[in-house]
Amino acid sequence: MSALPTPLAHLIQELVKLPGIGEKTATRLAFHLLRTERRDVELLANALLEMRDGTRLCRVCFGLSVDETCALCEDPQRDATVICVVERPPDLIALERSRQFRGRYHVLHGCLAPLDGVGPEELRITELLRRLEDGTVREVLLATNPTVEGEATALYLSKLLTPLGLRVTRIARGVPMGSDLEYSDQVTLARALEGRREVE
Amino acid sequence: MSALPTPLAHLIQELVKLPGIGEKTATRLAFHLLRTERRDVELLANALLEMRDGTRLCRVCFGLSVDETCALCEDPQRDATVICVVERPPDLIALERSRQFRGRYHVLHGCLAPLDGVGPEELRITELLRRLEDGTVREVLLATNPTVEGEATALYLSKLLTPLGLRVTRIARGVPMGSDLEYSDQVTLARALEGRREVE
Repeated sequence: MSALPTPLAHLIQELVKLPGIGEKTATRLAFHLLRTERRDVELLANALLEMRDGTRLCRVCFGLSVDETCALCEDPQRDATVICVVERPPDLIALERSRQFRGRYHVLHGCLAPLDGVGPEELRITELLRRLEDGTVREVLLATNPTVEGEATALYLSKLLTPLGLRVTRIARGVPMGSDLEYSDQVTLARALEGRREVE
Repeated sequence: MSALPTPLAHLIQELVKLPGIGEKTATRLAFHLLRTERRDVELLANALLEMRDGTRLCRVCFGLSVDETCALCEDPQRDATVICVVERPPDLIALERSRQFRGRYHVLHGCLAPLDGVGPEELRITELLRRLEDGTVREVLLATNPTVEGEATALYLSKLLTPLGLRVTRIARGVPMGSDLEYSDQVTLARALEGRREVE
C-alpha cells in the first residue's frame, strides 16, 4: 500500500508521460499543484483542452493556426514572393522570434527519413509545389534543420525546385553566436569555414 | 504579433507558473501536448482536477487522504505507539518509501520560521498533543528536515514532549548513502562524527 492518495498517484502517472519529466519532477509538480488554488489548477486544465481543441493547421502553410488560414498567411504586410520552408511548427516560431524574416512560411511536418519510412509523399511537398504554381513566389528559403535528415531534405527540395526557375536558398550554417570555437564540433567548423564571407 | 496561436501561448503561460518550468521547457511541453492524442490530454486535465478535488487532509494525522481518515491511520497493522512527526506530506511519502517505519505519522504542515511569521500556533502541534493524551503513544520520532528551521522545530518539540514522559527521538543525520566524504559539507561531516556508533 502506497502512502500516496490515488488521485495524486494518478496525476503523477499522467505527468510522467511528458517528455523530460521523470518521477521526481512529476511528484514535485503534483505537490506544488496540490498547494495551488483550485482556480489556478482549473486554468491549467482548461488551457490544456483549449490548446488541443482551438489549434489546427493553416490550410495554406500548414503552420499552427486558430482559424482556417493563419495570421501570417493572412497578413498583407508579409512578402508573398519568398517562402521559408521549415520542418515543424516550432521551427517557424523560432524563426519568427528572430524578427529577421518578413516573407511567408511552409511547414513540411517532418523531414525525409527513409529508414523511418518517411518519403517525400509523407511531407507537405505537393502542397508547396501547388503554392508555387501561380508564379508569385520567386524565392524558396530552405530552413530545414542542419541535421543529416534536414540537409537531405533541403538537397531533395533544391533539386526539385531549381528547375522551376526559382531562387532556392539555404540558411547559413556555422558557429552559433555566443559559442566558443574551442568547443565547436568539427562539422560545424567545417561549415563555418566553407561558408565564409567577405567582411563588409 | 507572435506566430504562436493564442491557445498555445495561453497554455505556455500556465505551464510557466509551475516550479522549475521555464519558457523553453513550457514551449517544449506545449508542442508535445499538441501532438498528443486528445484523449491523453483529457486524461491529464482530468487528473489535475481530480487530484485537487479528491485529496484532503486526514483528520487524525493531517497527511494526505482520499477519505476523512487516511489509510495509514486506519491500518490496524501499524504500530499505534510510535508517531513520526514530519513537516510536510511529501516527507511522509518519502519515509514510507523506505519501508522502514511501521508506526503512525503526524504532519505539522510547516516548520518554525519566526522570520516568516511561522510560530508554533501555525503548525499542527495542538493536534499532536491531543493525540498523545490517551497514553497509547510511547515514542515520538522527530523527522523534521535537517535544516536550520527543521532542527529548531525538533528542538522546540523535544522540549515540549520530554516532560510528558515520552521517548522523544530524532532521525540520524550523517553522510548520505552513496555519497563521497570528499564532497560532503562540513556540517554533515560534523554530524556524522558526532553521531557515530559502535560497529556491530
